[in-house]
Amino acid sequence: MAEKEKLTIVVFSGELDRALSAFILATTGASMGMEVTMFFTFWGLNIIKRNEGGIRSKGLMRKMFNFMNRGGSKRLKISRFNMFGLGTWMIKRLMKDINMPSLDQFITMAHQMGVKMIACTTTIGLMGLSEDSFRSEVTSLAGAAYFLGEARESKVTLFI
Amino acid sequence: MAEKEKLTIVVFSGELDRALSAFILATTGASMGMEVTMFFTFWGLNIIKRNEGGIRSKGLMRKMFNFMNRGGSKRLKISRFNMFGLGTWMIKRLMKDINMPSLDQFITMAHQMGVKMIACTTTIGLMGLSEDSFRSEVTSLAGAAYFLGEARESKVTLFI
Amino acid sequence: MAEKEKLTIVVFSGELDRALSAFILATTGASMGMEVTMFFTFWGLNIIKRNEGGIRSKGLMRKMFNFMNRGGSKRLKISRFNMFGLGTWMIKRLMKDINMPSLDQFITMAHQMGVKMIACTTTIGLMGLSEDSFRSEVTSLAGAAYFLGEARESKVTLFI
Repeated sequence: MAEKEKLTIVVFSGELDRALSAFILATTGASMGMEVTMFFTFWGLNIIKRNEGGIRSKGLMRKMFNFMNRGGSKRLKISRFNMFGLGTWMIKRLMKDINMPSLDQFITMAHQMGVKMIACTTTIGLMGLSEDSFRSEVTSLAGAAYFLGEARESKVTLFI
Repeated sequence: MAEKEKLTIVVFSGELDRALSAFILATTGASMGMEVTMFFTFWGLNIIKRNEGGIRSKGLMRKMFNFMNRGGSKRLKISRFNMFGLGTWMIKRLMKDINMPSLDQFITMAHQMGVKMIACTTTIGLMGLSEDSFRSEVTSLAGAAYFLGEARESKVTLFI
Repeated sequence: MAEKEKLTIVVFSGELDRALSAFILATTGASMGMEVTMFFTFWGLNIIKRNEGGIRSKGLMRKMFNFMNRGGSKRLKISRFNMFGLGTWMIKRLMKDINMPSLDQFITMAHQMGVKMIACTTTIGLMGLSEDSFRSEVTSLAGAAYFLGEARESKVTLFI
């Protein structure tokens, strides 16, 4: 049996627009029969943080940092014209208007389609995040070597 | 006859500096004999909007959004030091000074060199853009599946 | 003897967070036995500018531009939450706290591991930078055609 072609996406950015782009590509790739891995690092971890409850971390500075950088798919902002939330609200309205899934729904869909979602251990260590900061759809935690291993075997690799 | 090697570029960003980088790579690739496809999505659509006339769209919210987000190669700003247009003006002066083509000229050159420029249908639907919003150099409209199809056959794929 | 697999990274961005991500991937790739090339362009050149002394350039406008855009690994800011330097200071503290190398140390490590660091001639011309603007770790200067030549032979190519 032929091996599936692989698509690997590093999601570095934590804005709503880039997150949507990453998930549209990931779910489209999966629907085309590709084996898709998303590797979330730095601000990208915000996309896959739980929306509910608080995010625990140790030490004053990490608590402060994670308070500012709370994340969660429902809290992300667009990278331009956010204007205290107005632009983000407009984009979400426009998405509903054309029946595009929300980012939250895209994450669930991606999971159901077998997209692997990996959270970067280096960033987790840096930001002092506990493992229970993430949504249940997250497959596992891994480092840069894991990503490069996947990328080496991929037909398409993107850094978003 | 050997097939041409492919270069595929997703242009997600709409800033002048990233647009220039995308077109320098696209035209260089074409001059090296590569088959180049540029796939413009989200803010990247601003690069290939007509500079002249208005952009039509339906509904109050889309009209407002497209008014803010007018786009056109001559209206783009650099991503840093824009400072109410000063930095953008400086970069354009520095470009002229070393006889670098303007972004507008790069788009024409790319077209003449056979670079395919595709506008993303999902973003067009989201932003409610009419087909006549785009320059004549744009080859066609297509979705994420088209892009991934091209990317799978490409030697180099970039997300800018 | 088998050829080494190649990893090629365009470093377009000049923020601390993206620079760190680029060097973590570059050094990880090198440690996995890959042949790594980093191609620094536009704001990315700031990462590999000398930290010490002034940066010379010709003409008033270029002097002004390079004064604003001084660069150097120790001067870079993070892309979010910089807040007049507070966020950048916090990230650097968090890095020390988990014994992560500084960006400066990453650059030295990458060099020692054989990572090739190339500075983009087009940007150097545009910004009017003298060759002595760069750190000693920089391997050479080259243009977009050089990058695409490397990318064509690479297993993984990223645009950061």
